[in-house]
Amino acid sequence: MSRSEFDLIQAHFMRAVKNRDDVVLGIGDDGAALKYSEKQDLIVSIDTLVAGVHFPEPTVPQDIAHKALAVNLSDLAAMGATPAWVTLSLTLPNADEAWVSDFCTGFFALADQHRVQLVGGDTTRGPLSVTVQAHGFVPTGQALRRDGAYAGDLIFVTGELGLGGWGLAAVTQKLAPEYQRLDHTRAIVHLNRPEPRLAVGEQLRGMASACIDLSDGLAGDLRHILERSQVGAVIDAEQIPLPGMYCLQGDRQQALEYALFAGDDYELCFTVSQEKLGQLSPDHWLFSACWPIGKITDEPGLRIKTYDSHGCSNIHTLARSGYTHFDSAD
Amino acid sequence: MSRSEFDLIQAHFMRAVKNRDDVVLGIGDDGAALKYSEKQDLIVSIDTLVAGVHFPEPTVPQDIAHKALAVNLSDLAAMGATPAWVTLSLTLPNADEAWVSDFCTGFFALADQHRVQLVGGDTTRGPLSVTVQAHGFVPTGQALRRDGAYAGDLIFVTGELGLGGWGLAAVTQKLAPEYQRLDHTRAIVHLNRPEPRLAVGEQLRGMASACIDLSDGLAGDLRHILERSQVGAVIDAEQIPLPGMYCLQGDRQQALEYALFAGDDYELCFTVSQEKLGQLSPDHWLFSACWPIGKITDEPGLRIKTYDSHGCSNIHTLARSGYTHFDSAD
Repeated sequence: MSRSEFDLIQAHFMRAVKNRDDVVLGIGDDGAALKYSEKQDLIVSIDTLVAGVHFPEPTVPQDIAHKALAVNLSDLAAMGATPAWVTLSLTLPNADEAWVSDFCTGFFALADQHRVQLVGGDTTRGPLSVTVQAHGFVPTGQALRRDGAYAGDLIFVTGELGLGGWGLAAVTQKLAPEYQRLDHTRAIVHLNRPEPRLAVGEQLRGMASACIDLSDGLAGDLRHILERSQVGAVIDAEQIPLPGMYCLQGDRQQALEYALFAGDDYELCFTVSQEKLGQLSPDHWLFSACWPIGKITDEPGLRIKTYDSHGCSNIHTLARSGYTHFDSAD
Repeated sequence: MSRSEFDLIQAHFMRAVKNRDDVVLGIGDDGAALKYSEKQDLIVSIDTLVAGVHFPEPTVPQDIAHKALAVNLSDLAAMGATPAWVTLSLTLPNADEAWVSDFCTGFFALADQHRVQLVGGDTTRGPLSVTVQAHGFVPTGQALRRDGAYAGDLIFVTGELGLGGWGLAAVTQKLAPEYQRLDHTRAIVHLNRPEPRLAVGEQLRGMASACIDLSDGLAGDLRHILERSQVGAVIDAEQIPLPGMYCLQGDRQQALEYALFAGDDYELCFTVSQEKLGQLSPDHWLFSACWPIGKITDEPGLRIKTYDSHGCSNIHTLARSGYTHFDSAD
């Protein structure tokens, strides 16, 4: 089953009748925006992590809890929201108090760090899975969305991509032999304990034209911005920030594939208009904290510029799914 | 694994640090109450239904969707809230579009009925389960809670109890022989398509001293009110409304056990002070729409008054779990 099949499924829920005028932004973004007060919109986002799908079975409960909360806070970051409250629904195969105690330790550590309060929960019996809903606030009308990118906007990401994929390959022992001798600690920590980019998300209010968090790989997630904004993009393979230790002898190919397709990075990918960029001073935090990786185009589709050994560039179309190999179109 | 073990697990989450002053009522009730505006509090409630645990595996997707939404709306009803928005996280073993289409039909039918808008969702792969979070509103400070019952208050329920249990026994073919010849349609509909008591919940604002919805059987759920309110109760076996067709030849014993322990009724159980009752006119809707079943006491614990064949009454203590037989204490 591929991501795209789930996108088709998701489309059924877009049928949701718009029967309330207090819904600013409904289904189809990282979160919903709801009228809260004259000054603020409420942002909500719900996500489920399933054992064996979103985390390997042997993951310790502290890490499962951290990740379940972090991926939802990451959705709030992608909306530019400041987190406030969370609810939790935990499905467990058995009532293992020691496991739950460890889970709570991981959960509350991250919640306290971001001054988030757990306000409600449900515990039930069944195959291990964790659902969290995060609630946060943005100034009225300032939620970052997927549908605001325009041709000419530059595309940025907040950090190195692909680390989550390297971490998953390391813990599931699926690394090619040439990578096995490396120390994967940093990648595994990134996989298990992603840090939501909340501070950057807040600073992008009024600056980014579109934003998404990278949970399924750059190729799949950037495509959500393109589809919602009805635009295309060209990204530059040489400009995508990759973890240097995985570019063995300068070969970036495997690292690039993880960045594009592996997921679990939880960095932000966002677009900024050239006009807005022109208003920023050269020492603005954006230029030191984020990487420009390409440009939005009128021509639809997602394309990538790569370079051969002679430095000559080619532009390829990227295939649809985040989980399939990308194919050359030339 | 019993309900009480899960209560112990749930207690770990009560450790949640109270680090925000916009939380009116946190974890431990049917929903949380959060500051929303000068006039209204936001009520949120999250619940997960797992295949084979909360609904039998062959249940049709329309019914699964109805029930997943209804049990959350029922939590809002128990808080006295008017529903507004819902989010949905659906975990599916495979991307079956026909199944999802039917699911959406059931979901949106109930949502539209109560003018609730689906504002966000997540679809993922894994063992079938459905998590819904419902969001609603109450006038500031008027949320119905579990912790407000006082000695002397009368206890009411909104409808016949045990129907959900009869429905489950019918669809899982666990009925004793003497019940098998009956027509169980009404009980099965009640099991699969419970109707949240939202209108009653709204009318109980400012009237009920405590309220809960009945998901796990009267004995287990009423006990939550008693524990949170630090009181006890005596209920009268003869006054508990039971579905008449299951009281074969006047024998109410099996029907009473389903009412007390079987769950899936989604009626409201609430308490009202005698003072408040004295202010109501004799033709007030409460007296025709709801059943008084007992009284709150200073003495802790849950007791039930039963009658022998000579009409003599006995008072028994009810055992803790909603899933175990109740034992006589005399």
